[in-house]
Amino acid sequence: MAANYRSFRHSVPWLILLLEAVFILLFYFTFSDNAVLSISYPDFQDINHMVVFGFGFFLTFLKRYGFSSTGFTLLMVGLGVQCSALMEFLSVFLLKMPQEDGLRKVTKATMSVTAVVISAGAVLGKTNPVQLILMTVVEIICFHISKSINSIFLQVPGNSSMMHVHLFGAYFGLAVSSCFSEPLPRSEKNASTPKSDLLSMLGTLFLWVFWPSFNSVLHSVKWKLIYNTYIALAVSAVTAFTLSAMTTKDGKFRVAHIHSAVLAGGVALGCTDHMIQCPWIAMILGLLASVTTILGSNCLQRCLYPALKIHDSSGVHFTFGFPAVLGALAQVILIAVENKAHYPSLGHFIMFRVGAFCVTISIALIMGLITGLILNLKPFKATPVSKYFEDQFYWEFPHLAVGF
Amino acid sequence: MAANYRSFRHSVPWLILLLEAVFILLFYFTFSDNAVLSISYPDFQDINHMVVFGFGFFLTFLKRYGFSSTGFTLLMVGLGVQCSALMEFLSVFLLKMPQEDGLRKVTKATMSVTAVVISAGAVLGKTNPVQLILMTVVEIICFHISKSINSIFLQVPGNSSMMHVHLFGAYFGLAVSSCFSEPLPRSEKNASTPKSDLLSMLGTLFLWVFWPSFNSVLHSVKWKLIYNTYIALAVSAVTAFTLSAMTTKDGKFRVAHIHSAVLAGGVALGCTDHMIQCPWIAMILGLLASVTTILGSNCLQRCLYPALKIHDSSGVHFTFGFPAVLGALAQVILIAVENKAHYPSLGHFIMFRVGAFCVTISIALIMGLITGLILNLKPFKATPVSKYFEDQFYWEFPHLAVGF
Amino acid sequence: MAANYRSFRHSVPWLILLLEAVFILLFYFTFSDNAVLSISYPDFQDINHMVVFGFGFFLTFLKRYGFSSTGFTLLMVGLGVQCSALMEFLSVFLLKMPQEDGLRKVTKATMSVTAVVISAGAVLGKTNPVQLILMTVVEIICFHISKSINSIFLQVPGNSSMMHVHLFGAYFGLAVSSCFSEPLPRSEKNASTPKSDLLSMLGTLFLWVFWPSFNSVLHSVKWKLIYNTYIALAVSAVTAFTLSAMTTKDGKFRVAHIHSAVLAGGVALGCTDHMIQCPWIAMILGLLASVTTILGSNCLQRCLYPALKIHDSSGVHFTFGFPAVLGALAQVILIAVENKAHYPSLGHFIMFRVGAFCVTISIALIMGLITGLILNLKPFKATPVSKYFEDQFYWEFPHLAVGF
Repeated sequence: MAANYRSFRHSVPWLILLLEAVFILLFYFTFSDNAVLSISYPDFQDINHMVVFGFGFFLTFLKRYGFSSTGFTLLMVGLGVQCSALMEFLSVFLLKMPQEDGLRKVTKATMSVTAVVISAGAVLGKTNPVQLILMTVVEIICFHISKSINSIFLQVPGNSSMMHVHLFGAYFGLAVSSCFSEPLPRSEKNASTPKSDLLSMLGTLFLWVFWPSFNSVLHSVKWKLIYNTYIALAVSAVTAFTLSAMTTKDGKFRVAHIHSAVLAGGVALGCTDHMIQCPWIAMILGLLASVTTILGSNCLQRCLYPALKIHDSSGVHFTFGFPAVLGALAQVILIAVENKAHYPSLGHFIMFRVGAFCVTISIALIMGLITGLILNLKPFKATPVSKYFEDQFYWEFPHLAVGF
Repeated sequence: MAANYRSFRHSVPWLILLLEAVFILLFYFTFSDNAVLSISYPDFQDINHMVVFGFGFFLTFLKRYGFSSTGFTLLMVGLGVQCSALMEFLSVFLLKMPQEDGLRKVTKATMSVTAVVISAGAVLGKTNPVQLILMTVVEIICFHISKSINSIFLQVPGNSSMMHVHLFGAYFGLAVSSCFSEPLPRSEKNASTPKSDLLSMLGTLFLWVFWPSFNSVLHSVKWKLIYNTYIALAVSAVTAFTLSAMTTKDGKFRVAHIHSAVLAGGVALGCTDHMIQCPWIAMILGLLASVTTILGSNCLQRCLYPALKIHDSSGVHFTFGFPAVLGALAQVILIAVENKAHYPSLGHFIMFRVGAFCVTISIALIMGLITGLILNLKPFKATPVSKYFEDQFYWEFPHLAVGF
Repeated sequence: MAANYRSFRHSVPWLILLLEAVFILLFYFTFSDNAVLSISYPDFQDINHMVVFGFGFFLTFLKRYGFSSTGFTLLMVGLGVQCSALMEFLSVFLLKMPQEDGLRKVTKATMSVTAVVISAGAVLGKTNPVQLILMTVVEIICFHISKSINSIFLQVPGNSSMMHVHLFGAYFGLAVSSCFSEPLPRSEKNASTPKSDLLSMLGTLFLWVFWPSFNSVLHSVKWKLIYNTYIALAVSAVTAFTLSAMTTKDGKFRVAHIHSAVLAGGVALGCTDHMIQCPWIAMILGLLASVTTILGSNCLQRCLYPALKIHDSSGVHFTFGFPAVLGALAQVILIAVENKAHYPSLGHFIMFRVGAFCVTISIALIMGLITGLILNLKPFKATPVSKYFEDQFYWEFPHLAVGF
């Protein structure tokens, strides 16, 4: 089977080149740009940094999968951004949405790619590049469809529907992952070393620092969002250490807990937009998000996953999925509490938001499942289980003699 | 004794949770914010980046203490920022200071946390998380008290008193460290590997790049400060290599010298504010700061520390303390030279500045000593000397079988 | 011979100190600054980050040369920026160019240093610090001369001639490198480990993220340049994976290919300025640049270098040289195509641009060769071939007992 993949490899480059040719051709036809600039370069830069560098190193915890983690993230971002920019053009064209400036389009495209990178976390080490490329293209298209449905039929503003990106990414990835064979139990390669965990910590800290940018970039009045996100992240970080010490044997900290839970507050705050007026609400949300993540991770990994035979390589379900669900819940509660008087049709409004949440998660799960099934078809030469989590299957190793 | 700490561990989380509850409650009562935004988001971002990422990795040079260096830094920043923001609210409330906008408050809070992170460098590897948490809270309170005394009684503007943060952090940490048992001589764990030194270099370069932001963030006219700090850092970097080659056997470079001395120019420039009109003064200051740091490090580590039985894990005394003293000195000289004509009461003015310096250093030393004595009381279960510099005492090591 | 260098070491510090004294003295005389600020701090910050951090870690791929890669980069940047700022002052003074503000001068100085850092990549591991220092000073002076000739005699605007920095750096470095002895074939030290390759990937991703800043920083209308550079980089990244899989045995990816080719699009776009109106042209250029880089690397390393006996440690020729040549070519073609009607003297205009290209490359090659010959004179104590690629020759290794 490994041999099969090898013989298959030679068609990969042509697939990518073909895709690139199509992209260039489409860009030739679609590009037009006269809008006023509405986003600053440092804002875009932060998102770019976060996706390429932050997520790239966030996923390097597997000891023999560092090149693939960072390299394939770059590959997916490169492809996904082009694909996503085209979808933005298309939605302007088809849905008669207002024209936006180029930098805003690219920023939104980069944000959409986050969904792909999160999904890639769920199948980390189990997919070959062809599968990743296909997944990138399909997921970007699905995410844009989900966003458009939310915007058109459920009146969710574009800024808010973009924030479903974590939710979408996590559940899409989970659904894809459920179609792949589980790794061998106690596989020596499906593990981290202190060094790889430290590199992953580097990515985590990057994400932690840049998260306020992510939550505020599409809004014109930024500072309250920044402030709230930052304070929620601070509480999340502290809570992560607390809960980690509580749930492990002899009260030690677990690195994986820290990696996932410190970001929970940022993810949760993403969905609540401008609804949080006082920092203490953000703090409570950050605390709850962190608690949910760590308790969720213990719960899922001990009970649910073995039963459902799902394997979630980098725990995207509890790192991004759970906090996003919590954030969506908080959003509904906050709307209910704060706008009691303002909206005559509050029930209607809340129903629409809940509807948007359900639509996003359903499309993610259904399309993820379909994508997962397609990726496991014969022509895609799924990676054999014995070659999971192995850089050497995809990269040249001239350093082999030296040892890891 | 190790067993004692373990049994004690289960109370740690409750302590942190309690603290968080108190913070949230206080935030509930104190928050009010109507001021105009006076700081830009990228400025705040730089400070955040510097403290979380820069200092986190600056302290990773110990070969078996990488998780704790980066992780506990994040924990301290998370707690310290909340505590410091509350102190800012409190000082507005108690001292009737002018109201500031939220982003500026958070930025100042993050800058104050630098003191804690520097102090943590002095006791790196010798404290358990409970001690660090207590130290964080006490030090933040002391630093704000010191700042308030400087502002109210000695008429030092807020921007300048904030720049005493390195001075305060270094001497507070040193005083705390003097109360801890010294590590075993020639401990195999109290050392670095080339890899950990390289990671620490990563943190150092980050700090180097962001230092101009740190020195200029609170000022409204920034560019001269940025320019001077940058040129001083450039001279410091060059001088660091020179002096390192001069003071070592066979003229090789010592990594520890480079780590500490390249930043010296930035620290020294922090105290001189807008007083430097020409870049050549900044250059000379950068050169002197770097020289002081390296000569100081050789002096202290060979003569003074063995005599005083003080152990300064990451050399914060000469990395941050000495250049800050030099900067304070330069400030006084520059005031004397440049304002000879302007101030009728120049002597008065200089006396106040020298007073502010003495107050800061005295509070740091005295409160540091008291904190150090408290931290070594029985209820805090000080880490046994044999477990110094050891991640495994605080973190789960599933990778143990694999070897470091 | 090693002993010779050691005895020689003690004069190194005095050389640097003397240089610093000269710089400070010159700054004393030259500094004057009343111009209006024309560059924002985050823009300068990006360039600084890119040169110090990005290039520093980009060059860490050699397994035993990590300290020197990052450390000497910092040393060269520190010296080069001062030297380059002085040259800017001098050109304002001598050539009666318009006065610029301090931040812009420092930004331009930092950009010029890129040439030195790139050249250092070509001789990475083969030079001692004295040689690097001399090379820094000479190259900065030569680059400014080349820029001035382009500006004065060939009417190339300053922004454009700055973008020849990659071209100049690559060919200067190559010429210097041709004067050094080749490393021993199959030297165990002239290799990377997976860890060092991953650190180098870290630098590469940093450069990738910051490249749009580099191309746009000196222009007042930035966003189109940013947009085009970003999309070209995205295409380059994708193409790099494609071509790498195409040109290696069994279609695996080669890390070195990815490192160099993902940046090719950014380098190529640097030369074309505002001439690119539509993103599809940028995309095609990004694709071609990436193809050129990878095919060029295979070609050069298999055929040309062994014949010419040139050794290019980090492949700067195909990483920066080839894409820059391609960009210059594209520039000429774009001028010809787009301005057919506007310029009556189009031929004249194109001839000048081609002339500027030739002048830059000639000065780089000739001065590089001369510099290389001088650096190999006896007083500079060239590093013996057996000590190539070896940190231990320049740095203290207290960790030796521990093993790498």
